[in-house]
Amino acid sequence: MDQTRQWTAALVVIGDEILSGRTQDRNVTQVATWLNEQGIRLVEVRMVPDVEARIVEAVNEFRAACDYVFTTGGIGPTHDDITVDAIAAAFGVPVIIHPQARTILEDYYRDRPGGLSEARLRMARTPEGAELIPNPYSGAPGVRMGNVFILAGVPNIAASMLEALAGKIEGGRPMVSLTIGARAAESEVADLLRETEAANPGVAIGSYPFFKDGGYGANFVIRSEDGQLALDTGAELSRRLRDAGYEPIEGGI
Amino acid sequence: MDQTRQWTAALVVIGDEILSGRTQDRNVTQVATWLNEQGIRLVEVRMVPDVEARIVEAVNEFRAACDYVFTTGGIGPTHDDITVDAIAAAFGVPVIIHPQARTILEDYYRDRPGGLSEARLRMARTPEGAELIPNPYSGAPGVRMGNVFILAGVPNIAASMLEALAGKIEGGRPMVSLTIGARAAESEVADLLRETEAANPGVAIGSYPFFKDGGYGANFVIRSEDGQLALDTGAELSRRLRDAGYEPIEGGI
Repeated sequence: MDQTRQWTAALVVIGDEILSGRTQDRNVTQVATWLNEQGIRLVEVRMVPDVEARIVEAVNEFRAACDYVFTTGGIGPTHDDITVDAIAAAFGVPVIIHPQARTILEDYYRDRPGGLSEARLRMARTPEGAELIPNPYSGAPGVRMGNVFILAGVPNIAASMLEALAGKIEGGRPMVSLTIGARAAESEVADLLRETEAANPGVAIGSYPFFKDGGYGANFVIRSEDGQLALDTGAELSRRLRDAGYEPIEGGI
Repeated sequence: MDQTRQWTAALVVIGDEILSGRTQDRNVTQVATWLNEQGIRLVEVRMVPDVEARIVEAVNEFRAACDYVFTTGGIGPTHDDITVDAIAAAFGVPVIIHPQARTILEDYYRDRPGGLSEARLRMARTPEGAELIPNPYSGAPGVRMGNVFILAGVPNIAASMLEALAGKIEGGRPMVSLTIGARAAESEVADLLRETEAANPGVAIGSYPFFKDGGYGANFVIRSEDGQLALDTGAELSRRLRDAGYEPIEGGI
């Protein structure tokens, strides 16, 4: 495994229900967390409507710019599920009924009311040349086409597809993340944070204020691909906070 | 007010904490819902890291393509808050201390411990030529620069800025949205949905399956800028569902 190269991914969240405000997205957080574990950095998310041209544009831009592209949403049996068609169009290949996907769906619906109807068979459609991503949760598989991974929109199903993919795609070092909390208004420690970050190249420090249990405070998140550097920087920030009169809380508040 | 023109907006969500999976975004849903009420359609969301060039690129693309651009995140007092600098760079103008914002912060911090420190004064920085967006919640204002609206990342604060903007920017007809639920597997009603949508140009029908109270079902969301058309289509879909043996539930399940 390459320990120096940085692996990148982008996520395209597909669905009018997200852009209309009807549905609260849950996939960005879980895809991001999963990518961290694989040592892959999520560099951008785009949320686009159920419009083929918009999906094609985002996917083609990202599959050239990133190692991996993930999509969520639009792979069910209804007319508004157009992701497979869009990815096929992006790659310039036809949509086929994937034989293995058909078998999976035949098995899944054999003893279920309605059987494998024409609408359900839509969920066996893939771009020509694609592989399947197992879906232990509800039968209908995800799809891998080149470096593009097509996941379900329903968070539980997307999660089970991610589980099936874990350890199967190449990444680098997982990003190490440490959190240190303090009962400090972030404006009071702004200089201290900037100085600590500047003194430790390769580390990013984020500052996230809160109001909790009747008092202000902030959590400081130290992120690096170098675990030792993250720990050293955490120790340094802790000392600096204590010197400035604040009690640093490892793990955050 | 123009009742035929379609008004559009894009949202840029700024922050490493979103892309790392640490923080669950809450702003897409609330900005989308608010825009619907103003008769403005959210056409795309991009989530980008705390990297100036990436913010500039997204904002410049969107402010040419859409009527309005909203950003959330990155306007606090710490070193990772770079949104104002990025928007100024996007417009090619310098960053200034906005006199009115300074006055607001002086008033806000007058009786608070620490007073108006240099770090806090950072929150009075705006691109030259910008106007302020009131923040009744916590003092530090949002910023309007041309058609770009810079909101806080903390959802409560973003909400209070949206409230301050309500009715102040031009939109068209609010999108009308109706939901009809049924205890139907969506694959069983896929044809019926497609036919209903095809028969009613100007309407989009989304299908959102669920598993609830021990049974499957789906909610069908009918959306149109034409309220009468949305109602007529809802009535038609209800009839078709009933004819197919399902009990339509107005308002959804």
